Amino acid sequence: MIALITDFGLSDIYVGVMKSVIYGLAPNAVVVDITHGIAPYDVRAGSFALRGALPYIASGTVVVVIVDPGVGSTRLPIAVRSGKSWIIAPNNGVISGVAFDQAVVLDKPEAHRQGQISSTFHGRDIFAPAAAMLHESHDLLTVGTPIESKSLVSLERGHLSRTDASLIAEAQHIDRFGNIITNITPDILTIWAADQSDFTVTCGASMLPARRVTYYNETPVFDGLLLLVNSFGLIEIASNNASAARKLGGIQSGQAVTLKRI
Amino acid sequence: MIALITDFGLSDIYVGVMKSVIYGLAPNAVVVDITHGIAPYDVRAGSFALRGALPYIASGTVVVVIVDPGVGSTRLPIAVRSGKSWIIAPNNGVISGVAFDQAVVLDKPEAHRQGQISSTFHGRDIFAPAAAMLHESHDLLTVGTPIESKSLVSLERGHLSRTDASLIAEAQHIDRFGNIITNITPDILTIWAADQSDFTVTCGASMLPARRVTYYNETPVFDGLLLLVNSFGLIEIASNNASAARKLGGIQSGQAVTLKRI
Amino acid sequence: MIALITDFGLSDIYVGVMKSVIYGLAPNAVVVDITHGIAPYDVRAGSFALRGALPYIASGTVVVVIVDPGVGSTRLPIAVRSGKSWIIAPNNGVISGVAFDQAVVLDKPEAHRQGQISSTFHGRDIFAPAAAMLHESHDLLTVGTPIESKSLVSLERGHLSRTDASLIAEAQHIDRFGNIITNITPDILTIWAADQSDFTVTCGASMLPARRVTYYNETPVFDGLLLLVNSFGLIEIASNNASAARKLGGIQSGQAVTLKRI
Repeated sequence: MIALITDFGLSDIYVGVMKSVIYGLAPNAVVVDITHGIAPYDVRAGSFALRGALPYIASGTVVVVIVDPGVGSTRLPIAVRSGKSWIIAPNNGVISGVAFDQAVVLDKPEAHRQGQISSTFHGRDIFAPAAAMLHESHDLLTVGTPIESKSLVSLERGHLSRTDASLIAEAQHIDRFGNIITNITPDILTIWAADQSDFTVTCGASMLPARRVTYYNETPVFDGLLLLVNSFGLIEIASNNASAARKLGGIQSGQAVTLKRI
Repeated sequence: MIALITDFGLSDIYVGVMKSVIYGLAPNAVVVDITHGIAPYDVRAGSFALRGALPYIASGTVVVVIVDPGVGSTRLPIAVRSGKSWIIAPNNGVISGVAFDQAVVLDKPEAHRQGQISSTFHGRDIFAPAAAMLHESHDLLTVGTPIESKSLVSLERGHLSRTDASLIAEAQHIDRFGNIITNITPDILTIWAADQSDFTVTCGASMLPARRVTYYNETPVFDGLLLLVNSFGLIEIASNNASAARKLGGIQSGQAVTLKRI
Repeated sequence: MIALITDFGLSDIYVGVMKSVIYGLAPNAVVVDITHGIAPYDVRAGSFALRGALPYIASGTVVVVIVDPGVGSTRLPIAVRSGKSWIIAPNNGVISGVAFDQAVVLDKPEAHRQGQISSTFHGRDIFAPAAAMLHESHDLLTVGTPIESKSLVSLERGHLSRTDASLIAEAQHIDRFGNIITNITPDILTIWAADQSDFTVTCGASMLPARRVTYYNETPVFDGLLLLVNSFGLIEIASNNASAARKLGGIQSGQAVTLKRI
């Protein structure tokens, strides 16, 4: 299996061309789109998507993650072995936060697309051929040369701090439903707020009441925001059959959200 | 084959994670996306998509339909056998209108994802594993316990009424091209209007002339709306190389449309 | 392999139904989405996508290209053999610019979907069944009757002209990142501007400085536009980590762009 995460979107031919190259080199591969909807250039969002999806991807899979504003520059294309899977990506932090036990730089010309390598589409010319080769060989050394793990770029973690009165966190992702996935773990919320159930959530100029629940339509008549543990083990700010993000004035990922106990 | 209809969209990792779970459990399955573009929470739209696609889906397929605002609540996850295919869905009416001969509630823990079941993503934790198991077993009893068919939620049908002067119907779906698919069958149109070819179509404050045709660019110089039998056997309000929905003031699915004879 | 290029989008069931028909008739086919994001009715955009993707599609593939405003009218459904691949499309110019050595009209009823053929969805009723049959037979004569190549519709090429002072070209495509792909080849740029590196780009009322580079973030402090050879061998107007199209006042494909030397 080869799984893909990119910021290419689906309106251009880029994803289709990458898949065509993969199938041309590895006709028996099963290619799975995790998502191509990462916001353009948003390396942090790519990293968040990878960390979310990885636990559910079957062992033996080659995961290709491309959010690559530095394509064609000196940033290196790399691959790592993570447990029984492999991850291929540009070395720009998009795979940071993922444990791995071996890393290579994709410097083997025989693992690149034959012909000239473009300086704008390494997805087609470097990452797809490496994925196809790794899918067949299951051996990082067929596609690259070992590098030290400390050469891998690491992203700073999102802001998270607390006082007695407030918990200041970050919106890591806004999903299609307008749910706001924060970087707060249930443990942290419990340490800070014990079993308290009523809060306010502030983002910029917007402040709304919020209630801790376990599923979306638990309190149908309550019109405020909901705080729940989402399916990826993070505190999510939601709203029953409505967009929490819209209620909070159109919050974007990366923005701060502040919780206060009522 | 496993076919998917959801309101998950493609910008998040939800569809990719579901597919990863399916392929992990049923590596030989062919997974086909029917659509993930159902509007968030729109159970009626999911039902319309299912009824449209089902006749074209090969027998033996497991169809998974997830539009599930009540995820995590007491609404039950179910599966039915419909002819030689199977349908898996929440019991909220999203499969109403589809004939079936056996129904089960998905209550077998061995057909759920191993580990804790989330209360916000049954697509991953309940529906995908059940689909994979059903794909292998072709037997509803491997995934659930029989329930009576009368416990299945049924949606009310869309409004449709007529007088001598007017036929009042409902926009069931607006497609990418701005075509408006109504709930009028060709039979009903013929009973009401015989072989009449000129009409007006009213929606809210917008009224436009409409002409009965058999294909989109049949009357290139006519700038009004077109009425034709679409490929799913329903009367569709269209416009030659333009969006009929925009011409009618941005009509949404669920809104009333009124036809009058000229 | 069967590759798909359409203007159907992914919010409706049209693509899913087409794939269901294909898999029903050719269960072993691998279906690859090149893109379904062609703008509605935009035959030129479909043609551009086909020419871009074709060199990367494995030989033996059946490529289906559907941008078909004339569906149901007298325009003919056709198929051609292009090298070791096949292309199926309406005869409206969407495959013009592609070399081929044999052409047929899809007139064999046994290669159509059984039952009534709709006049609005030939993707499902004519093109998908022909693709499945061609995938199995690798023989155009199983799906149609030969026609002369001169009956195939050809699109006019985009405008491109130059004086000493300026090079007037056309935006062929705006991609997800806001990159503007022109119809200028590197050869033409070199003939007109030798190794000059500084230009202005004008589109409508917007004029911006532009610099020739080889990759996107080559000149991080330069805030103007970039001119580079993109991965498909065309001059692209880009911007470092930003949308060139937005900087040029929201330019659309088909609009003129004028380069002047500084």
